Amino acid sequence: MKRLFLILLFAPLFVGAKEPADWVNAFIGTTNKGVTNPGAVVPNGMASVVPFNVTGSTENRFDRDSLWWSAPYEFHNVWMTGLTHVNLSGVGCPDLGSLLLMATGGDLEVDYLKYGSRMAGQQASPGYYAVDLERYNIRAEATATTRTGVTRFTFPGGKGNILMNLGAGLTNESGASVRRVSATEIEGYKLLGTFCYNAQAVFPVYFVMRVSKAPKESGLWKKQPPARGVSWGWDADAGKYKLYTKYEKELAGDDVGAWLSYDTEAGEQIEVRVGVSFVSTANARENLDRETSDRDFAALKDAARSTWNDHLSRATVEGGTDTQKTVFYTGLYHTLIHPSVLNDVNGQYPLMEKGGIGHTDGTRYTVFSLWDTYRNVHQLYTLLFPEKQVDMVRSMIAMYDEWGWMPKWELFGRETWTMEGDPSIPVITDTWLKGVRGYDIEKAYEAFYKSATMPGIALPDTVRPGGEMPDSYYSTMTGEFNRMRPDINDYISKGYVPLRGQYDNSVSHALEYYIADYSLSLLAADLGKKDDAALFRKRSDGWRNYYDTKYGTLRPKTADGKFWSPFDPAEGMDFAPNPGFHEGCAWNYTFYVPHDVKGLAKVMGGSRKFVDKLESVFAMGYYDPANEPDIAYPYLFSYFPGEEWRTQKHVAELLEKHFRNAPDGIPGNDDAGAMSAWAVFSMMGFYPDCPGQPDYTLTTPTFDRVTLRLNPDYYPAGQFTIEKTGKGYTNNIELDGKKLKNYRIGHQDLVGGGMLKFTATR
Amino acid sequence: MKRLFLILLFAPLFVGAKEPADWVNAFIGTTNKGVTNPGAVVPNGMASVVPFNVTGSTENRFDRDSLWWSAPYEFHNVWMTGLTHVNLSGVGCPDLGSLLLMATGGDLEVDYLKYGSRMAGQQASPGYYAVDLERYNIRAEATATTRTGVTRFTFPGGKGNILMNLGAGLTNESGASVRRVSATEIEGYKLLGTFCYNAQAVFPVYFVMRVSKAPKESGLWKKQPPARGVSWGWDADAGKYKLYTKYEKELAGDDVGAWLSYDTEAGEQIEVRVGVSFVSTANARENLDRETSDRDFAALKDAARSTWNDHLSRATVEGGTDTQKTVFYTGLYHTLIHPSVLNDVNGQYPLMEKGGIGHTDGTRYTVFSLWDTYRNVHQLYTLLFPEKQVDMVRSMIAMYDEWGWMPKWELFGRETWTMEGDPSIPVITDTWLKGVRGYDIEKAYEAFYKSATMPGIALPDTVRPGGEMPDSYYSTMTGEFNRMRPDINDYISKGYVPLRGQYDNSVSHALEYYIADYSLSLLAADLGKKDDAALFRKRSDGWRNYYDTKYGTLRPKTADGKFWSPFDPAEGMDFAPNPGFHEGCAWNYTFYVPHDVKGLAKVMGGSRKFVDKLESVFAMGYYDPANEPDIAYPYLFSYFPGEEWRTQKHVAELLEKHFRNAPDGIPGNDDAGAMSAWAVFSMMGFYPDCPGQPDYTLTTPTFDRVTLRLNPDYYPAGQFTIEKTGKGYTNNIELDGKKLKNYRIGHQDLVGGGMLKFTATR
Repeated sequence: MKRLFLILLFAPLFVGAKEPADWVNAFIGTTNKGVTNPGAVVPNGMASVVPFNVTGSTENRFDRDSLWWSAPYEFHNVWMTGLTHVNLSGVGCPDLGSLLLMATGGDLEVDYLKYGSRMAGQQASPGYYAVDLERYNIRAEATATTRTGVTRFTFPGGKGNILMNLGAGLTNESGASVRRVSATEIEGYKLLGTFCYNAQAVFPVYFVMRVSKAPKESGLWKKQPPARGVSWGWDADAGKYKLYTKYEKELAGDDVGAWLSYDTEAGEQIEVRVGVSFVSTANARENLDRETSDRDFAALKDAARSTWNDHLSRATVEGGTDTQKTVFYTGLYHTLIHPSVLNDVNGQYPLMEKGGIGHTDGTRYTVFSLWDTYRNVHQLYTLLFPEKQVDMVRSMIAMYDEWGWMPKWELFGRETWTMEGDPSIPVITDTWLKGVRGYDIEKAYEAFYKSATMPGIALPDTVRPGGEMPDSYYSTMTGEFNRMRPDINDYISKGYVPLRGQYDNSVSHALEYYIADYSLSLLAADLGKKDDAALFRKRSDGWRNYYDTKYGTLRPKTADGKFWSPFDPAEGMDFAPNPGFHEGCAWNYTFYVPHDVKGLAKVMGGSRKFVDKLESVFAMGYYDPANEPDIAYPYLFSYFPGEEWRTQKHVAELLEKHFRNAPDGIPGNDDAGAMSAWAVFSMMGFYPDCPGQPDYTLTTPTFDRVTLRLNPDYYPAGQFTIEKTGKGYTNNIELDGKKLKNYRIGHQDLVGGGMLKFTATR
Repeated sequence: MKRLFLILLFAPLFVGAKEPADWVNAFIGTTNKGVTNPGAVVPNGMASVVPFNVTGSTENRFDRDSLWWSAPYEFHNVWMTGLTHVNLSGVGCPDLGSLLLMATGGDLEVDYLKYGSRMAGQQASPGYYAVDLERYNIRAEATATTRTGVTRFTFPGGKGNILMNLGAGLTNESGASVRRVSATEIEGYKLLGTFCYNAQAVFPVYFVMRVSKAPKESGLWKKQPPARGVSWGWDADAGKYKLYTKYEKELAGDDVGAWLSYDTEAGEQIEVRVGVSFVSTANARENLDRETSDRDFAALKDAARSTWNDHLSRATVEGGTDTQKTVFYTGLYHTLIHPSVLNDVNGQYPLMEKGGIGHTDGTRYTVFSLWDTYRNVHQLYTLLFPEKQVDMVRSMIAMYDEWGWMPKWELFGRETWTMEGDPSIPVITDTWLKGVRGYDIEKAYEAFYKSATMPGIALPDTVRPGGEMPDSYYSTMTGEFNRMRPDINDYISKGYVPLRGQYDNSVSHALEYYIADYSLSLLAADLGKKDDAALFRKRSDGWRNYYDTKYGTLRPKTADGKFWSPFDPAEGMDFAPNPGFHEGCAWNYTFYVPHDVKGLAKVMGGSRKFVDKLESVFAMGYYDPANEPDIAYPYLFSYFPGEEWRTQKHVAELLEKHFRNAPDGIPGNDDAGAMSAWAVFSMMGFYPDCPGQPDYTLTTPTFDRVTLRLNPDYYPAGQFTIEKTGKGYTNNIELDGKKLKNYRIGHQDLVGGGMLKFTATR
């Protein structure tokens, strides 16, 4: 039924037109710390095939082994060591970037520091990536299904080798096991994890690799431990890469791999398919078999592209420049990389924080970077892909079922405890209040109530100067306590989280709890839990504790109720550690009270002062377009009648300046799509600036016309249209011909099948 | 039927008497490079539980990490790091000695260099070993079934830990995978191999470890690779042992393990059962389940002891001193350690040199150290355990079936190519000609014919002075050639193997080929292949090429037919490398023409000169009682009428001097039982000095009476008795009252149910 809908609606749209996939430039965000990549992937794919060019050569500007680095690919690097098959996009810590597949020519060399090649002739489009391995004159082309990466190597003739390296890669975790299954198949697993230095967040990826041609010779390799004493000294291989030429069983080690050598004809193509699973090698094999079956590379590539066209056509844009269309569709493309499918084709997935196996009839998702994505990515899914969003919500509730906690920053069944807050509450509340249903909301509420009320851990009252109390501190605690809000005790008793360690991010923690509790109050009210609603609504008001009239900003407070000194609201720019705030200065957080913008304006001395101060943040250069805490700032002007043009001005300027058709066309980490979602919403003319609240603030769309193709299972109207006329700032907005009272629109209005028209007449 | 036979015959023998197992001192051979161990094992057991005390402390005299070492245990060492579950006994290269189980008290420590303990209160008897881990006040007691090691730890109370270390151990190969199956079970595999530095002779051991009590906490560990650059520097665990406290899936690496922590009561006992398999973890589990089922430690220990009594009572001795009885039964015990059972309880085993799985309805054996054991160990099996010998022969033939070659030095499905020759030929010929049947002799012959005739590799005619051409050189060769006799081309065309590299062991190679071809001629004749018999008989005569009248010894010859110079027949003592001979000097090899003792005497100038020269070998101290080439020397005197007393004298003296009830009671490496078999035969009064020839040379038995309990399935008489009367040298030997013509006896006479009586009257 859903599939039918996609095909029927999609087909007529592109008769003779450029396809949505044609507008995507997968190189956007691949430098300037955007940490996206041009690899081949399908929407929400578990597998992707990504050029890995961040190691193995001093010619590379950015090297995974010589500087802090979090992506498998960098646009300016010139030397690659292969194609990785499990990858993260847009995240700020190194992980995955593994199952490194390479083709080489000539004599076999298995040391990744020696076998790399200069890259040339890169091409990328949704579901397809190609590159020349210049050193070997080998062309590599890749496509993917949801759980399988498919690469076709074209050899120049002579001896050619295919290498699967399980030692090198991006993750800081190590260790792998590999086994030859047959002449054309190997299988194994590799450990991944320790994302953002959470040492216990470790998980395995299982894989089956199948080649289209039996090799002339094949085997495994392992870097041997260095020699220990006389007995080891006789081992010629000690400390070196040893080739296992006759071993046909499991091989394990820190640094292992498999090689296949061929005599090739000129132009001979050999295909490598790598099925992955986070459950078992058997599932990886089933994934590979069922997803690729007898289809050849061209058919698989076409299928991947067709899937992308299906997805990208949920919002079609007309008017605007080619660049704007490219930015828009690429943004939409980037929001569809994560969350990722976690379950295998047979429905199995790794249980949350357990060794066992779960089963889903739908889709189990993973890679929930919720501190980022609760702000806009899930709102975009709820609007354009509600069927996915429902499965994401189900996945989150299932995690609570399996483990007792909603996710915070979940990665393949492990909670990494990265960043702070209680972000599942606004995500699910937002979905629920938008009428997108199909999950156990009472169970979700049970989980929310737990994390909003369960006691945390006792913390010292004295501040540790220079000391740290990062999130990872809490993750090392054992015993029963509120793992989601470990510092909740004071939050409840004092109404704020006091500064305990100089760099403990206490204000950032509390601000997240306020917005979460505000969301929770909305949900409680909707579920008829009036007392709860009142309780949490009241708690969400605690942000006032931090407001310091002296500076006109939020400011850290110690346990005795005094503001922390010395204080400089600009301290903490550019991710420098500073007291109370996380990845930002006080200016980047002061306006983050999205549920009480009017209240904030009041304590600041009124609308005028609020607007002036907010403008000054932009004017002084404190606004950081590259991180989440302040990304809704431009929309806050629209809360004040007559000031809406400022929203339109800033949004347009920010889009123009920071979102471009260029490798550095994302202002910083794409943050699992949150930066891209900001651009996508902004270019369509509306933005969910208060997560959990089913409304949007409006701004002038980038395009003359935006058509939302809505899933009729959730939105019976099936379509919504946005139009813009005139130039300059919008001064009139009509929904189906009826003028809106303010620059806000409720979700139900937006999916009601009508037409939203922005008009600029002045 | 066979089992019934064992029980019925065995039971009455020990009414009120000391059991055979009581005579075994498992500490014999555990120093002086005997490299046996006192661990718990059953006859031919795949698993054993051996104290591992050769690493982790400077207090140990012999340390696996600081000197060349080949055993898991040394009598004089005082510090142990655990109990290993797969082990080799009496071999000269380090391997196995892995699956290192330890119990500790107090805080968890997983670094084997830190968690060891001083040993005290060791006890060992067949199937049982016990030791106090003094540092922790923990008693460890071990027993074994064929495929499962069982250890019972008695804790003093308080925190106790059980560690399974897959990183430390004896083998030079590394890499393991481990997984938590349940609170009380872990499973995994570890790589073993590179025996005698054959880098490709690698194989995995799979295991399932089950504890009798669920731990309070448990997890895995892995030594992390050292930090690489900034990204890794943030990992607090880089370069250290990291504890995985929440990871419940597979963990792989070079140095990994599993830990379980308990709160124990004083005197609390926790049992650990480790099932092993060389096929799969599933099989390891089935082995564990089926072999130990519900039986407790005491029952398993009793069963192991009972099995040993069954085996050891195949030969019972009366008279002699207690020390002699101890030496005898311990020798018999040591001959029953290897070969080892390779197949699982379900009949599966790893195919020879392949990744696949075979199936046997009988027993598949492994650990064929044939250069050692073809001389006497298999003869002892043929006599006392013909049912095992038949399965060993079947195993060898199956290896040929699976891989195309008979074994030379086979280790768990891998040919290590250690030492030289074609030893399967005398082993199987010997068995066949002794009438012990039940295998495909024509297929065996096919294999023998192949290795005796297939071309080898082309070798340079020039000698490489100082150069080496050890056996491992051949093992690196690829392509089709005679892997058993790589230097056969000259052997056939010239009749000898020329010296090519200064230390190429060429004479030793050829001497092994002569004896093999002599055996093959006997077999061919028996099978009616007259021409073959003549051909190989003629080839076996080639030893004459090496005889140099100038020195009166065998001497290396170059390809041009000239003797190699300079030459010193004493060069090569004590395993020093020397031209032409392997692990010995010319004196240790010159008399090794067992199939033509009379012919050798003739070229030496007659019997007198032969006898004098052989005596001079003993007199000058050239006789090496610790290695195989010359161990039959004492028996050669008996080929010459009137000189038999010399055999008796030397054998008795050698037994007295080198085989004692003491840790250094074996003269050197037990060589997978070959040294012990020499003692066992010698003490019974007969010795198979010409492998492949179904005869024995007689000497005065150590005991007044030896009763051989023969398997009636193979020897219908079921029993044979040997008696000795008088003191001094035997001068009369009667078989069933009929005086023997010489000091030799045929196998059929020895198993004919009669009585052999040695009388000394002078």
